[in-house]
Amino acid sequence: MTEIADQPAQPEPAPAARRRPRRAAAPAPAARPADPAAAPGEGEPAGQDWSSWPTYNAATLGFRNYWYPVEWARRVGRKPMPITLLGEQIVLVREGDKVRALHDRCPHRGVPLSLGRREFDGTISCPYHGWTFDTESGKLCAVITDGPESPICGKVSVRTYPIEERLGLVWVYVGDGAPPPVERDIPSELLENPFVMGGRTDIRDGNWRFAAENGFDEGHAKYLHNTALWRLFKVMPAWNKTRVVESEKDGWLIRVQDEVHWEADFPGLGTWTNKRWWKRMPLPDAPGKAADINPVIKEMDLPGFVSIRLPGLLRVAYPHFIHYEWYVPVDADHVRYVQIMVRFEQGLKASVFKAKYVSFIRWLFHGQFTGQDAWMVDVMDAPPEKLYRPDLSVTAWRRLIERSGLKVQREKTGLER
Amino acid sequence: MTEIADQPAQPEPAPAARRRPRRAAAPAPAARPADPAAAPGEGEPAGQDWSSWPTYNAATLGFRNYWYPVEWARRVGRKPMPITLLGEQIVLVREGDKVRALHDRCPHRGVPLSLGRREFDGTISCPYHGWTFDTESGKLCAVITDGPESPICGKVSVRTYPIEERLGLVWVYVGDGAPPPVERDIPSELLENPFVMGGRTDIRDGNWRFAAENGFDEGHAKYLHNTALWRLFKVMPAWNKTRVVESEKDGWLIRVQDEVHWEADFPGLGTWTNKRWWKRMPLPDAPGKAADINPVIKEMDLPGFVSIRLPGLLRVAYPHFIHYEWYVPVDADHVRYVQIMVRFEQGLKASVFKAKYVSFIRWLFHGQFTGQDAWMVDVMDAPPEKLYRPDLSVTAWRRLIERSGLKVQREKTGLER
Amino acid sequence: MTEIADQPAQPEPAPAARRRPRRAAAPAPAARPADPAAAPGEGEPAGQDWSSWPTYNAATLGFRNYWYPVEWARRVGRKPMPITLLGEQIVLVREGDKVRALHDRCPHRGVPLSLGRREFDGTISCPYHGWTFDTESGKLCAVITDGPESPICGKVSVRTYPIEERLGLVWVYVGDGAPPPVERDIPSELLENPFVMGGRTDIRDGNWRFAAENGFDEGHAKYLHNTALWRLFKVMPAWNKTRVVESEKDGWLIRVQDEVHWEADFPGLGTWTNKRWWKRMPLPDAPGKAADINPVIKEMDLPGFVSIRLPGLLRVAYPHFIHYEWYVPVDADHVRYVQIMVRFEQGLKASVFKAKYVSFIRWLFHGQFTGQDAWMVDVMDAPPEKLYRPDLSVTAWRRLIERSGLKVQREKTGLER
Repeated sequence: MTEIADQPAQPEPAPAARRRPRRAAAPAPAARPADPAAAPGEGEPAGQDWSSWPTYNAATLGFRNYWYPVEWARRVGRKPMPITLLGEQIVLVREGDKVRALHDRCPHRGVPLSLGRREFDGTISCPYHGWTFDTESGKLCAVITDGPESPICGKVSVRTYPIEERLGLVWVYVGDGAPPPVERDIPSELLENPFVMGGRTDIRDGNWRFAAENGFDEGHAKYLHNTALWRLFKVMPAWNKTRVVESEKDGWLIRVQDEVHWEADFPGLGTWTNKRWWKRMPLPDAPGKAADINPVIKEMDLPGFVSIRLPGLLRVAYPHFIHYEWYVPVDADHVRYVQIMVRFEQGLKASVFKAKYVSFIRWLFHGQFTGQDAWMVDVMDAPPEKLYRPDLSVTAWRRLIERSGLKVQREKTGLER
Repeated sequence: MTEIADQPAQPEPAPAARRRPRRAAAPAPAARPADPAAAPGEGEPAGQDWSSWPTYNAATLGFRNYWYPVEWARRVGRKPMPITLLGEQIVLVREGDKVRALHDRCPHRGVPLSLGRREFDGTISCPYHGWTFDTESGKLCAVITDGPESPICGKVSVRTYPIEERLGLVWVYVGDGAPPPVERDIPSELLENPFVMGGRTDIRDGNWRFAAENGFDEGHAKYLHNTALWRLFKVMPAWNKTRVVESEKDGWLIRVQDEVHWEADFPGLGTWTNKRWWKRMPLPDAPGKAADINPVIKEMDLPGFVSIRLPGLLRVAYPHFIHYEWYVPVDADHVRYVQIMVRFEQGLKASVFKAKYVSFIRWLFHGQFTGQDAWMVDVMDAPPEKLYRPDLSVTAWRRLIERSGLKVQREKTGLER
Repeated sequence: MTEIADQPAQPEPAPAARRRPRRAAAPAPAARPADPAAAPGEGEPAGQDWSSWPTYNAATLGFRNYWYPVEWARRVGRKPMPITLLGEQIVLVREGDKVRALHDRCPHRGVPLSLGRREFDGTISCPYHGWTFDTESGKLCAVITDGPESPICGKVSVRTYPIEERLGLVWVYVGDGAPPPVERDIPSELLENPFVMGGRTDIRDGNWRFAAENGFDEGHAKYLHNTALWRLFKVMPAWNKTRVVESEKDGWLIRVQDEVHWEADFPGLGTWTNKRWWKRMPLPDAPGKAADINPVIKEMDLPGFVSIRLPGLLRVAYPHFIHYEWYVPVDADHVRYVQIMVRFEQGLKASVFKAKYVSFIRWLFHGQFTGQDAWMVDVMDAPPEKLYRPDLSVTAWRRLIERSGLKVQREKTGLER
């Protein structure tokens, strides 16, 4: 047989089919229960579905009753800015030094208020019929097309959302009743110390739960990221032994490294290591070293350098700076990564850090490195899943969620909107 | 705290989520009934859902037993042209001076006949196997690939649709039984008088009901359109008081302006007016003035200048010309705007109007002005809704629909196709 | 009335609506039963739905327990290649002279293995956590991020698929239990004779059943393809009389032409013929002629020149060469056309054929001609359907399927994945 060369390769027509199916609602869990307290670290994988984690399983849209950072405060001006948060459509507008947030839907006929005009101070007017809402109270305070005595004024209002500005970010509270102080949801070291910071916000495909799990996940960092430019000159370990402990302060879960292995010999396969002649061993990312260098970290007295807390905030305490990353639910299929890099310095040293952040840290660390995580979050498709020993960080996080009495955000439908 | 400038703003990933969700079927109404006779003009908003308007609520695809204008007659030639009307797939072909319309699906294996060939006069042949249908009767009159004695000939046919040409437009009747004369569905003044006209047809996103409501809606015109270029040099009112009356002739609902207010003072907010130094007060759009100028309008003896009739035709009688706009259901999520501008003149005056229409009226009025309406129709998302005083025009229209014994177009599924 | 020219035509907004609706699952058949043995050739159309063909109706994703050709062997290298086959996600990798196929999903968190790395010979590693699978057995043989003593090793595996290489193609077996020899699913004349071949593979929109039916369908070829460039200089018949017979050898259904009519006179319409002054009558595509020219075809002793066999392989025996075409189910809405053109020759004659194939046969026959079929497969929308006399080839094929005790591929959902 002789064969003739054929035409160039056809692309597979459905690359989307390789990606995680989008979920409008939480996947229905199978019936098999499992003991949520069982750690998979003991060599026994947990159940394949999420029936062991009912709160987690239902939390496609995140948790209510928290403050979430959504946008840089300086970007919010008089012009209405639409955002989506926990599946809710919200419009942000600035009134002088205050930012206001309203449900982004005119109750009259459902036109987004973010398309509207700013006719009077402290109000926003629907572009369709000029229904004019007080941005602070959400009350319908004038209907331009119905004259000063419009009988519907005062009888209709749109939902408002508590807003605060901290760290240069706008924080929105999605919850019921009076909100707690925003400080409850901000790491205390950021409230008590002077610092310099840089950061970026990005919306990417994928559910927030995968993003948060990925952030705290011990297993992937060494392998997925050993191709990251950020680690080009630093050896990554092969494997570690890890514990998770809970901090007394601020409700952090902290990953503690008990062993670090720089190479591994797999019988019958070969030796795996990330050591290369051009890579040097990294500074230990251990809190001891960081504490030597950084008095704030010393004061924090952390047993490990990676921690996570509710509703989805990661903290990585490098010796010279701390990286914070919020995984903010947008909707079932999108997550907002809010990343900041903080250094507890002022003056000239702060200026040097600013220059470094802008010239390469933002691009290498908050860009390409986090981009690898966002890629996995996008293509992941679980459950079903089979957990392994390093997933004890994932299961510790899920257990924290299950026992914290959280209020799951439900999808709004029909008249509830 | 010092903060470093971040990267450029990320676009929100899901702008579609801000738009009205597409509906394949009518939204399920909630259970709460309301009195359909209650006018919201009395300061009491009607129910938030459409359960008070069951016919209207079901009419996602429009009403059967009407003639609908769909396309300029001169555009329909021998080459088959596919259109969608009330959710039905239809193919138009011209046979000499007649246009024919058939269901656009070969009953053999479901291939669209609009992809077919014209083998013999008065027929259309499916491109797949040459099933050949008489375009007048819809009967299978030959099967090219089965020879002259094909036993299936005469046993199969496709649905045909009555067709007429009037005003340069092709009119299709979607209904059951013998159709009424097309003249029933054309304003009588267009049948009885000589005139000149210009026009355009456009298919835009959105359901036809929102488009029709928007057309007759008194409330939005003054506010939404005060930024229209068409009104750049004319003041728009702030608010009006309006009634709706029913015409004896041709079944029109007519909006009557009882009060026009050019400015409004909203306590605590300020004064709102569209008056600007460069804008002059418009000619009154009142029928009295139009009647003075235009003998046809005088004869029509309208109490107001904006009217609507079934199944969805708006008429705006300006002093010098009349604008007609049909809201023709394409499918649940698209509406065809068929707009014509008519002037009751002939000869040189008609030529001057033609030149004006082509050079700016088409662009400013039938383009940008109507485009603002189509924008609202697209982003609107109701029910739920809360109606206000000026919505008496909307509720009058809905009441007309509820009491007119209309035949709702249902979605075709499965073998019914 | 004078009418003013309007703006350019608007495109219909929803061309997709003209196309066959995509099906995730088989359409629900209506209840009316029919006798599956009744041939429509007798002038009596079969039932309009597919309830007479329950196996066929359910086989949206094709049949298990067959070998399917999917890709040119030379295109599969060390770099993982994702494919979809019968709705299953599969990754192909080459290990030296062997191609391996695994389910393209890491059981850990659902990341596609086709995104992975090749760390050790004979393995593929998930890019996320370095779960490393033996490509032959599918067993988890190392977890890089969990060290040499990872307790999960050997406890998890991914499904593998039997693979063979024949005719320069990679063949994948989707089925249960030990596979039969791949030779069972390859025409015997290709195993027993020396030949030269050319070919191409393409994925196109549409369900595989329409593609297979279209291939064996007698009716369309003469009409649809009379505009094909491949037939530019050859007259196509108007209509034929056809039978279908079953071959003792290899399970082929064979179409036998009893009559060929080059023109047809349709009363009241006119005469139809494909004869043109520039077209000559073709060589008879009859097996007699082919057998004279081609000793292999002579030995095959076929009563007709077009045949089909399970699971979806068409053979067209032209005098000088044989065209084979596999209709390989990708998913419910995509089909892979694997086409080869075979000539039973060697040496110089084979080189001449190669040159002809590359310069025009590939483009005209495997490209534009088959492209017309793929167009119909894409726009077809059945059931409902009405069959006619020439559809006896289609119904013979369906009857073969119904009585062959085939195993329908079901959609995988949830934990079954």
